[in-house]
Amino acid sequence: MTAANQTPTFSDGRTVPDHRLSRILNAQSVAVVGASSDPAKISGRPLAYMLARGYGGQLFPVNPSRSEIQGLPSYPSLRDIGHAVDLAIIGTAAEHVENIVREGIEAGVGAFVVFSSGFAEMGVAGRDMQRRLGELARDSGVAIVGPNCLGVANSQTGLIASFTTALESTGLRSGRFSFVSQSGALGAYWLDIVLRSGTGFSQWITTGNECDVDAAEAIDFLVDDPSTEVIGLYIEDIRRPAAFRAALQRAAVAGKPVIAIKSGRSSAGAAAAASHTGALAGDDALYDACLHQYGALRVDSLTEMMDAARIFLHRATPSGPKLAVMTVSGGAGVLIADACEPLGLALPALAPATVDALAPVLPSFVHPANPLDITGNVLQDTGMIGKALRVLATDPGIDGIVLFIGMMHSIADFFVQALSEARRHIDRPIVVVWIGAMESSIHALEAAGVPVFLDIPQAVRALAQSLHVQRVRPSACAAQLSAPGLGAVSLAASPISEFDGKQLLRSCGAIGLPRGHLLAVDAIDTVPELLRYPVVAKLQSAKLLHKSDAGAVILPIHDEIALGAALRQLRAIGERLNIPLQGVLVEEMVPFDHELLLGLRRDDRFGAVLTLARGGIEAELAADVTSRLLPLSADEIEAMLRSLRVGRLLEGFRGRPAADIPALASRLARLCAWFESQPLKELEINPLAVCAGQAWALDALVSPLAAS
Amino acid sequence: MTAANQTPTFSDGRTVPDHRLSRILNAQSVAVVGASSDPAKISGRPLAYMLARGYGGQLFPVNPSRSEIQGLPSYPSLRDIGHAVDLAIIGTAAEHVENIVREGIEAGVGAFVVFSSGFAEMGVAGRDMQRRLGELARDSGVAIVGPNCLGVANSQTGLIASFTTALESTGLRSGRFSFVSQSGALGAYWLDIVLRSGTGFSQWITTGNECDVDAAEAIDFLVDDPSTEVIGLYIEDIRRPAAFRAALQRAAVAGKPVIAIKSGRSSAGAAAAASHTGALAGDDALYDACLHQYGALRVDSLTEMMDAARIFLHRATPSGPKLAVMTVSGGAGVLIADACEPLGLALPALAPATVDALAPVLPSFVHPANPLDITGNVLQDTGMIGKALRVLATDPGIDGIVLFIGMMHSIADFFVQALSEARRHIDRPIVVVWIGAMESSIHALEAAGVPVFLDIPQAVRALAQSLHVQRVRPSACAAQLSAPGLGAVSLAASPISEFDGKQLLRSCGAIGLPRGHLLAVDAIDTVPELLRYPVVAKLQSAKLLHKSDAGAVILPIHDEIALGAALRQLRAIGERLNIPLQGVLVEEMVPFDHELLLGLRRDDRFGAVLTLARGGIEAELAADVTSRLLPLSADEIEAMLRSLRVGRLLEGFRGRPAADIPALASRLARLCAWFESQPLKELEINPLAVCAGQAWALDALVSPLAAS
Repeated sequence: MTAANQTPTFSDGRTVPDHRLSRILNAQSVAVVGASSDPAKISGRPLAYMLARGYGGQLFPVNPSRSEIQGLPSYPSLRDIGHAVDLAIIGTAAEHVENIVREGIEAGVGAFVVFSSGFAEMGVAGRDMQRRLGELARDSGVAIVGPNCLGVANSQTGLIASFTTALESTGLRSGRFSFVSQSGALGAYWLDIVLRSGTGFSQWITTGNECDVDAAEAIDFLVDDPSTEVIGLYIEDIRRPAAFRAALQRAAVAGKPVIAIKSGRSSAGAAAAASHTGALAGDDALYDACLHQYGALRVDSLTEMMDAARIFLHRATPSGPKLAVMTVSGGAGVLIADACEPLGLALPALAPATVDALAPVLPSFVHPANPLDITGNVLQDTGMIGKALRVLATDPGIDGIVLFIGMMHSIADFFVQALSEARRHIDRPIVVVWIGAMESSIHALEAAGVPVFLDIPQAVRALAQSLHVQRVRPSACAAQLSAPGLGAVSLAASPISEFDGKQLLRSCGAIGLPRGHLLAVDAIDTVPELLRYPVVAKLQSAKLLHKSDAGAVILPIHDEIALGAALRQLRAIGERLNIPLQGVLVEEMVPFDHELLLGLRRDDRFGAVLTLARGGIEAELAADVTSRLLPLSADEIEAMLRSLRVGRLLEGFRGRPAADIPALASRLARLCAWFESQPLKELEINPLAVCAGQAWALDALVSPLAAS
Repeated sequence: MTAANQTPTFSDGRTVPDHRLSRILNAQSVAVVGASSDPAKISGRPLAYMLARGYGGQLFPVNPSRSEIQGLPSYPSLRDIGHAVDLAIIGTAAEHVENIVREGIEAGVGAFVVFSSGFAEMGVAGRDMQRRLGELARDSGVAIVGPNCLGVANSQTGLIASFTTALESTGLRSGRFSFVSQSGALGAYWLDIVLRSGTGFSQWITTGNECDVDAAEAIDFLVDDPSTEVIGLYIEDIRRPAAFRAALQRAAVAGKPVIAIKSGRSSAGAAAAASHTGALAGDDALYDACLHQYGALRVDSLTEMMDAARIFLHRATPSGPKLAVMTVSGGAGVLIADACEPLGLALPALAPATVDALAPVLPSFVHPANPLDITGNVLQDTGMIGKALRVLATDPGIDGIVLFIGMMHSIADFFVQALSEARRHIDRPIVVVWIGAMESSIHALEAAGVPVFLDIPQAVRALAQSLHVQRVRPSACAAQLSAPGLGAVSLAASPISEFDGKQLLRSCGAIGLPRGHLLAVDAIDTVPELLRYPVVAKLQSAKLLHKSDAGAVILPIHDEIALGAALRQLRAIGERLNIPLQGVLVEEMVPFDHELLLGLRRDDRFGAVLTLARGGIEAELAADVTSRLLPLSADEIEAMLRSLRVGRLLEGFRGRPAADIPALASRLARLCAWFESQPLKELEINPLAVCAGQAWALDALVSPLAAS
């Protein structure tokens, strides 16, 4: 048995989790292929970094032209090392990589990190080489990170399989924050920030072109990594959406917040992303939905990521949106209240008992309120800080405390001491905003587990974001993840006619259909009986998708004479259009209170997606739309409905008739489940007419999946 | 002639502008009343600060119990100094202030800065003392800053009439940024930030309780101050809105951007502000309107203020929204594009000539595009930086350049050099985002006039904000400021009936009124002739303001029989309501395309205000409203209409009929001018029916001003 096959253990004896990536991140022996004696060169840096930072495992430089590199014996090849190593780092020219990996696999190497560029990002030949590398990984079972990546690092073991310059001048610093990045550059910036800020990190994984190991697998590894508490993520495109969703869900269940930057939000950004990675940028709204519904936080910058992460790392997430704010300046209290309101955070009145208990603690001229201005008097009476915090923490209506300090360097130590004690003895989370804080105060507070922000908006935003993660987690944990047919490109056949689509929909049973008749084109002089007026008449053809635009929908029709005229008019339109006609659908008009748009489609990346929106022109004036990935429970659909602005109309706004939202959500949940079982590419119901708990498909556009 | 009456000049011989506050900020002699020998005490700090920082004027400690203070001869009283000083600083107990000021005025003191608290912020007695202080100032013509303020400072002369701790450990640093603050605390934080960041400042004025000198006068002073280029502002409440508007307008005309924090944006914040300053918090939307329309930038935090200020101070405002983005990492380019789009900044395609000229400058595998990824190759070919910048600057479709750098410390000097040169030779503004920048690089670039941001969103937001100021300035300069009746509390008499209101409106002539008849209640069996059906019938009473809620509006009425029934029904409702009835207004129904809400009112603070909003339930679902202070030109009203979401409907959205927006705006401008000439408190037209260039008041609620 080689070293690589032993169950790896941490230095404290804990067993390393059984995960394919453990072989990489917890490697106990590392070979560096093409290692250089020059510690400044890309191929010299990993060795130099690990030697300088005390990596505890074995290191094997591989370079046939030297016998010794950076003080270590050098080997001509991976095979010549004489036993299997856990990890081989490869940074040679692209064309040599495949052979080196083959040789390594034969020599029992457990995994590879490939820095080399010149693969899929460089055209057809590179794509072929990359594909073969991926096949090698799958056939042999070894894990390959890269190619075209900046490598990985583990602060716990000192493993630095990377040439990032972010480690040039800073030592490793252990922390509980880990990062997965599809961009080496963003990965390096993140590393630089966590090392210089003192936050530190646990694992750092850049996945590059992802021939084998991808972001989803890296997240999955971090969920099991005992040293990781918060997971950062930079993604441009995900290749295995089902695995990605499963990893996010596992993180949510494990209570490890995921904070993600997904680039390509804008149309310009999406275009740039496409040319950058060669990967097609995904539909941004679906990424948004995916991250949101699994409780991951989407942020726009590394700064925002760090702000949110510090709330999580210090377990400073309030238990709800109600904050007590304590300040040394009245103006700051107002600014904090201003920042809280639009983000859904509240500053409730203090309980009478709190007010009574605060009075003796505060100067006589201060009326205890929220925000609570303890005034500059704190300079004379520093004991006030801890006393007031302890009283605020007893208020049953308070979910968390924000303390604002401005400069006050002369009593900085008192603040640090009072807050450190409060952190130990108070069960409410505390966040500090300290404008003009000294670095020593910040470090002391962060070391004591109190997050410090240098201005108000950053703190308030991070608090609001942390609450989102808190809120979403239970539903993410509840959802069963089934992902039928994900990842496969599902081509649509041509759409079918409204009439045929509605026949399909009838088999679902969840959504009502107006009573109607299909009249053959050559028999439309026969006015249908049994229908109640008013009715609508619509020309039917699989080739006629935008009926209204073609004038092929006539309504309202109030009597038989008008109907006869309408039918003749539609026949004339059909003849003029010169398309195969199925007939004319005559339907009773359904009275309704609300008009929605419903879309169900199989996205090539994310699988089935439900989109709900306001119907009609209003939705176009101001987007009022929400999308979520299936499967979805009735509760989740109810939340979607209520999240729309039109949700207020559904709730019965200003005396308008209300819809029965739970009943409606339950119908839509049945529709979603039915859709997943059907060979359909897309189903659009627009409008979906709603009245109380009833819903009717007034029109339906259905595209079956192409027969495979 | 005393020294205080000489025309003050700067050390370089320039004459100090003739402004009341010059006597304070450019004081050449300063007395400190109650000066302490202890430089750590509030009453010792101003002297200590000025002595240590080389204030060039004369200093006179005033303290009857000492003969010498901090090495200077001490005087028993202001009178005993023997000649008039420009400025006296007072920090004694509140009850002594009035007498000291009286004595100072008699001794020829030119102005006062009063630190003392215990005035309006402390109840009735304090309010009285403060009122008397204000009267003293007005009667004598001297300027008084404070009371309850942190004082003022001028970095040019070394004047520090303040006890702020922000100056404890940092020297004065001259800059071109000045600040006016109604909060001493926020003032201190600002000072701390500009001193530590190296931005420096010119003038710093905290106005405290504003018994005399207020924020408006301070801004007005800074407009004339040659060393001030950008004005920062923290306000909670303004006392002289007309003067405030005039000062903002002068700043706009002078091309000095104003960046304002106005606290109390939220309802919770407004409540806290009211208890904090004793000043009623203003209507936040009107502050918003006021700042916006005079081209001042409203920001939410000091951090945001500093970001915007650095763009202005370095004259890095792009000439338009089209940016070229150059990066050392593709991922960052995408993130910048993502950040730009929602803020209205565009990354247009490069001109063909630019692409051709870039090709030889860049590595062969880079395709010149926007964003332009010059890649990590720049590490080997640093000359690329300057060359690429120069080419980008020749693109005629580019208004500004953003350069993104990540770390790259090994070639930091090349970046600094290339950017410094570009700043001198390129006519396009350049902004740098440098994640992980070293402090030395930041300082070198800022010294060279290139603003540096540490992350993407901050830079993009500041750029977008600077463009707003650029855009608004011309219209602010064009507007004639007339502010009739500002500041006086204008009470409304009771509203009058719709019919009476419409008679008033008829005299304006700008807005159409439906043809109609007022039927006497006892004669309503007589159906009016000459009206075309359909009509609407509305009960009229000055006591019936919400007619629809009372069922007192019946529509549509299609014929004489229905009208008769409606009239009888309205009479019955009138009898049941038991209010004095004016009659029933029967009006023809006007067909229209669009429905707006128009409000004109005289605000107690800001004077006449126009509010335009979408009519009906939609506006309540999602706010779609804009307010601006009068006077307003037709162009400005047109911009208001187009800024609404419903503006897209007015423009003819999706084939809907368009309104003639310029014609509509011209009518509304006439209505506004008419409103200013009328003794009206409020006029609400809801709905305002719009069809092409026509507008009809379908309902009108008019409140005259109470007879004074």
